[in-house]
Amino acid sequence: MSGNSFGLLYCVTSFGESHGPAYGGVVDGCPPGLALSSQDLQRELDRRKPGTSRHVTQRRESDAVEILSGVYEGRTTGTAIGFLVRNEDARSKDYAAIAEKFRPGHADFTYTQKYGFRDARGGGRASARETVVRVAAGAIAKKWLNERYRVVIRGYLAELGATKIPFEDWRFVDQNPFFAASPGLVPQLEKQMDALREAGDSCGARVNVLAENVPAGWGEPVYGRLDADIAAAMMSINAVKGVEIGAGFAAITQKGSEHGDEMTPQGFLSNNNGGVLGGISTGQPVTVSLALKPTSSIRIPRRTIDAKGNPAQIETTGRHDPCVGIRATPIAEAMLACVLMDHALRHRAQCADVVPPLAFRK
Amino acid sequence: MSGNSFGLLYCVTSFGESHGPAYGGVVDGCPPGLALSSQDLQRELDRRKPGTSRHVTQRRESDAVEILSGVYEGRTTGTAIGFLVRNEDARSKDYAAIAEKFRPGHADFTYTQKYGFRDARGGGRASARETVVRVAAGAIAKKWLNERYRVVIRGYLAELGATKIPFEDWRFVDQNPFFAASPGLVPQLEKQMDALREAGDSCGARVNVLAENVPAGWGEPVYGRLDADIAAAMMSINAVKGVEIGAGFAAITQKGSEHGDEMTPQGFLSNNNGGVLGGISTGQPVTVSLALKPTSSIRIPRRTIDAKGNPAQIETTGRHDPCVGIRATPIAEAMLACVLMDHALRHRAQCADVVPPLAFRK
Amino acid sequence: MSGNSFGLLYCVTSFGESHGPAYGGVVDGCPPGLALSSQDLQRELDRRKPGTSRHVTQRRESDAVEILSGVYEGRTTGTAIGFLVRNEDARSKDYAAIAEKFRPGHADFTYTQKYGFRDARGGGRASARETVVRVAAGAIAKKWLNERYRVVIRGYLAELGATKIPFEDWRFVDQNPFFAASPGLVPQLEKQMDALREAGDSCGARVNVLAENVPAGWGEPVYGRLDADIAAAMMSINAVKGVEIGAGFAAITQKGSEHGDEMTPQGFLSNNNGGVLGGISTGQPVTVSLALKPTSSIRIPRRTIDAKGNPAQIETTGRHDPCVGIRATPIAEAMLACVLMDHALRHRAQCADVVPPLAFRK
Amino acid sequence: MSGNSFGLLYCVTSFGESHGPAYGGVVDGCPPGLALSSQDLQRELDRRKPGTSRHVTQRRESDAVEILSGVYEGRTTGTAIGFLVRNEDARSKDYAAIAEKFRPGHADFTYTQKYGFRDARGGGRASARETVVRVAAGAIAKKWLNERYRVVIRGYLAELGATKIPFEDWRFVDQNPFFAASPGLVPQLEKQMDALREAGDSCGARVNVLAENVPAGWGEPVYGRLDADIAAAMMSINAVKGVEIGAGFAAITQKGSEHGDEMTPQGFLSNNNGGVLGGISTGQPVTVSLALKPTSSIRIPRRTIDAKGNPAQIETTGRHDPCVGIRATPIAEAMLACVLMDHALRHRAQCADVVPPLAFRK
Repeated sequence: MSGNSFGLLYCVTSFGESHGPAYGGVVDGCPPGLALSSQDLQRELDRRKPGTSRHVTQRRESDAVEILSGVYEGRTTGTAIGFLVRNEDARSKDYAAIAEKFRPGHADFTYTQKYGFRDARGGGRASARETVVRVAAGAIAKKWLNERYRVVIRGYLAELGATKIPFEDWRFVDQNPFFAASPGLVPQLEKQMDALREAGDSCGARVNVLAENVPAGWGEPVYGRLDADIAAAMMSINAVKGVEIGAGFAAITQKGSEHGDEMTPQGFLSNNNGGVLGGISTGQPVTVSLALKPTSSIRIPRRTIDAKGNPAQIETTGRHDPCVGIRATPIAEAMLACVLMDHALRHRAQCADVVPPLAFRK
Repeated sequence: MSGNSFGLLYCVTSFGESHGPAYGGVVDGCPPGLALSSQDLQRELDRRKPGTSRHVTQRRESDAVEILSGVYEGRTTGTAIGFLVRNEDARSKDYAAIAEKFRPGHADFTYTQKYGFRDARGGGRASARETVVRVAAGAIAKKWLNERYRVVIRGYLAELGATKIPFEDWRFVDQNPFFAASPGLVPQLEKQMDALREAGDSCGARVNVLAENVPAGWGEPVYGRLDADIAAAMMSINAVKGVEIGAGFAAITQKGSEHGDEMTPQGFLSNNNGGVLGGISTGQPVTVSLALKPTSSIRIPRRTIDAKGNPAQIETTGRHDPCVGIRATPIAEAMLACVLMDHALRHRAQCADVVPPLAFRK
Repeated sequence: MSGNSFGLLYCVTSFGESHGPAYGGVVDGCPPGLALSSQDLQRELDRRKPGTSRHVTQRRESDAVEILSGVYEGRTTGTAIGFLVRNEDARSKDYAAIAEKFRPGHADFTYTQKYGFRDARGGGRASARETVVRVAAGAIAKKWLNERYRVVIRGYLAELGATKIPFEDWRFVDQNPFFAASPGLVPQLEKQMDALREAGDSCGARVNVLAENVPAGWGEPVYGRLDADIAAAMMSINAVKGVEIGAGFAAITQKGSEHGDEMTPQGFLSNNNGGVLGGISTGQPVTVSLALKPTSSIRIPRRTIDAKGNPAQIETTGRHDPCVGIRATPIAEAMLACVLMDHALRHRAQCADVVPPLAFRK
Repeated sequence: MSGNSFGLLYCVTSFGESHGPAYGGVVDGCPPGLALSSQDLQRELDRRKPGTSRHVTQRRESDAVEILSGVYEGRTTGTAIGFLVRNEDARSKDYAAIAEKFRPGHADFTYTQKYGFRDARGGGRASARETVVRVAAGAIAKKWLNERYRVVIRGYLAELGATKIPFEDWRFVDQNPFFAASPGLVPQLEKQMDALREAGDSCGARVNVLAENVPAGWGEPVYGRLDADIAAAMMSINAVKGVEIGAGFAAITQKGSEHGDEMTPQGFLSNNNGGVLGGISTGQPVTVSLALKPTSSIRIPRRTIDAKGNPAQIETTGRHDPCVGIRATPIAEAMLACVLMDHALRHRAQCADVVPPLAFRK
């Protein structure tokens, strides 16, 4: 094990490099009998796909997914689901120039020091293109969670650089290239991105993700908390530097009398805790927010060193997202889905015989 | 497995409840030959101990630790290290009143719904008293990391409610009950806590933790990232609602030209990435920041429901920390130590034969 | 993780050494609501206890177990169950003589080479006394499996050295110090052991274990097979050198037409497969057989080397079982119980919604 | 996780079905810098390949393997190694007849009861064709173990039905279709198999596997024993019903004075323990023996039931190995290689700083 699997019972294993022949994954632990086709995965992959607007990388990938096992006559069999996404538009020569230098903010340096050398083509294993595997695995989890428990998982871009993007309505999210939930702001976001691209720079972003209809009781004390596993899953997404659950960092300045969510026979009166108390889901929406750093590969020249340790200057001219956060929404949804599904299975393993004593009067 | 273990190679297993006979833990995977006595654990446990100032819970516990295995003639043998901390001052009658009601912001409700019933005495397994196990396990990790790699792990309280506490010098941290690194602010913090206690309310906090001298190369791509495991470890601490690595949420509004840490032959010029790139340590300090919510158990009356789902009012009169963040510094240090030690072992398992190609000119 | 835990969902962690202060364990993953007291553990521990007849070690241990967590008002809470068994009769001076020599057939040499040194008192961590933890953990599993699924797990001594002990009736097993299922042979076994003890030698044994009423469907393809996990569990017991499921090694000379268990609407007609096909339980009894080597610590002088690598002679005079297989029956039962419980939980995690299509007409 | 991965640090994940598009695997944890090409895997796969003699299944598969990731410029990068073996000669119509009946001795029944339905084409996930993944993963482990520690792993067929096949010399093993180490017996084995095939029946087998040059110190107490992990790995191979280490079941009738391997300054004088003491390697050859049951799919008519539970008769006419044990030698070698490599990595994670105190005088 060297970090390429996650999940205890809904376990995802990933392989592939940016300029290798293919990415692929194995989902182990999916319950049998779920109706599943490659279309179910493709739909989510298409939301994450590069080249869909001028604001993201212009690499042309169909991201067509092939399911290789675990599905028979349209239903999951309960055995391992293997799938493959071939790389189609890998232009490794673009990277010859940077193979011998370390890009600031990139994993070039750390991979080299850890492994002794690195696959420099397109970032190799460190490329965010690996998230195709997460999105495919998340699509299966999303489907099962929805069919079995009516869980709905959705996200949106909440900040693009300095611009805050308020939430208006879910139905806008898939209608613009930014996953913004307020359509009025889209022209401004486009202008902002055009300026950034022109300047050869990049910016950070915030993505919010929610899971609704999660039953109370998922998650485990003490280290296996639902929120701890969510934090790991989100922090494992390329470029993420911060994770919040519920009130998050705002909880620092809250009083206990303000933060603690009061209850009535009809349910909770607020959701500062983000749907998790003591590491276990409350039945309220699970709310997560993440910070993504600006893309490291920019055209603006920067100081660095070369493979021999000598001073150098670098400017990255390959095809890159000027804001990796833009395409992060479906990825964050996928990771949340995988964690929730893992805990759904873990919960019923241990507590299948428990009848929850309380039901809110709705 | 139901969440009470963490770590792949440096694996900590925890048990115990607030008003049960004892807390205990098992550390599996510690290298043999480390000089170790119960005093090494006690020193760290004493930093976390309740009752050391009027600003924390008045529960009187000596937190005396007994090592039961894995140490022979003063050195670790390489086998499992079991240890025990007996509970001494458990006054369960204090909790009779709340056994039949759910405290807002507390795990009472979720444990009941998950397991069908709960040990209500002092929060049972959900009590933050469980962190004695973490601190004991972290003490071993801290010692080994320091002796083997000169790693130094330290933390401090950076915000108490609305008060920001700037970092001045490490030597102040253990000289005041707040783990504040700027002594001039201590009188103000005392006044703030006195007012809060009088009001029967509680407040949140921010804790910063750093690890220095971590070699480049620890951490694993893709899901097994060092920062992902740190995020999980921190989010698993009671009351934590947010985690940042390096620039954290500030990265949202940074430009790529500002965020990406430039390099020279002497090293990095900044540390926005918090010592982790692509999930792997860079050799710079690993910097982590966490948000802790205000204590849920407060004296101010709050709306809730009782065990039958009927409306009720609750005010918690037991002994509680008015700010759980105050005692969180040694706990966060311990969790960071455990994660780093786990990754130190994981790294040398896979990469023991790698000579890092680059060395900065110091 | 250094080998001191086992089980994915019913996870047992063990610590302790033969002459340390105590053995202890943590059971993580037990479903909530199971009625449990220390008596439930003690009953099984007493079956394994040393000193109960002249044919086993004369070390005097009450093996009294204390439950430290995870049980509240007589029922499991779903959180980690910690327990402790204090060592009472550790005479370390007995071992001074052997501390500087390696006993043939013992782990003295391998522990020293692995860890650089060893706790030589009574075999340290390698002592079979560690099996108290297994038996305690198995007692919980046995109870839950029986209450939830009516599973019955029983074993007996099938061979003692060259003497085969045929199975007659379960009710005899707990009525003699050998766990023999045919009472007529007991006087002969006693004579055999007396002669062996007099000669200062030891002998091997075979133990058979069965689990009845295991539902069809437990176990996982391809590596997570029920029989693979049973094989590991049994081979992890001190002194075990071989494991068989069903026909075992006899299957080598069977024809396919003889081995494959035919089926009728009433069920299987034979059980050569030992209740497992394709790694998954069939609904028939799970039958396991294990070979235990003769005790390594004997009075007969043997050639060995000392700590400096020089030739030496050794004879072991401490208190030892002349046949470790005699006390192995409750241990093997415990290990089978733990594995079955783990797979019961794993099965319902993934397949809780499956209704098995077929039912035999009974 | 549903059983399709194994290994803690050298972790193999497997997917694929007999008549699906492909088998594939992911090896996670391989150290970086190992020279590796698909030829290294192909060589071992060709030893296991079907259709190479008239004594094994006549299914025609090239078993051509494609490495999809983890190798860059001919060397492993340290990231996940994904590989694929396409199925070419899947004739699913052969199986239409048996889709509605349960073959005695086969996993048909248990998969159906566990998952609610099954992929009946060629045995689906339960087919021994899955072992391509093991052999490919084992090839990488074999290569690394040999280059890093000079470990040599070899096996041979020791019994074919009632015929014992003594070991003569390793160089014969790859020169006959049986992996027999005594060439004189080959004509008799051929006759035996011809008769069996004519009779439409099948037989069992014994395979012996050895690992030489394994350093002392690999393996972990108490549950993570090297022999326990070997037992699980072997028992997870299709058709295996028994596993022995060293003297195995013969240890039952040995005396302690006979079994315990004496030591001199030059090393051990015998190897009854099979290279493992206390779960840790001794430095002697690790010796393993396994029993494989006769193939379940035979032409002789047998009693069974159909999908509705009604009485039926079945005779299997597809292409099958009349003795699965014949092709098991490379598979058993592969599994032993994977377990040893896992423990090599685990050992150096924890004990990299230990200098073994003793060296034999050779």
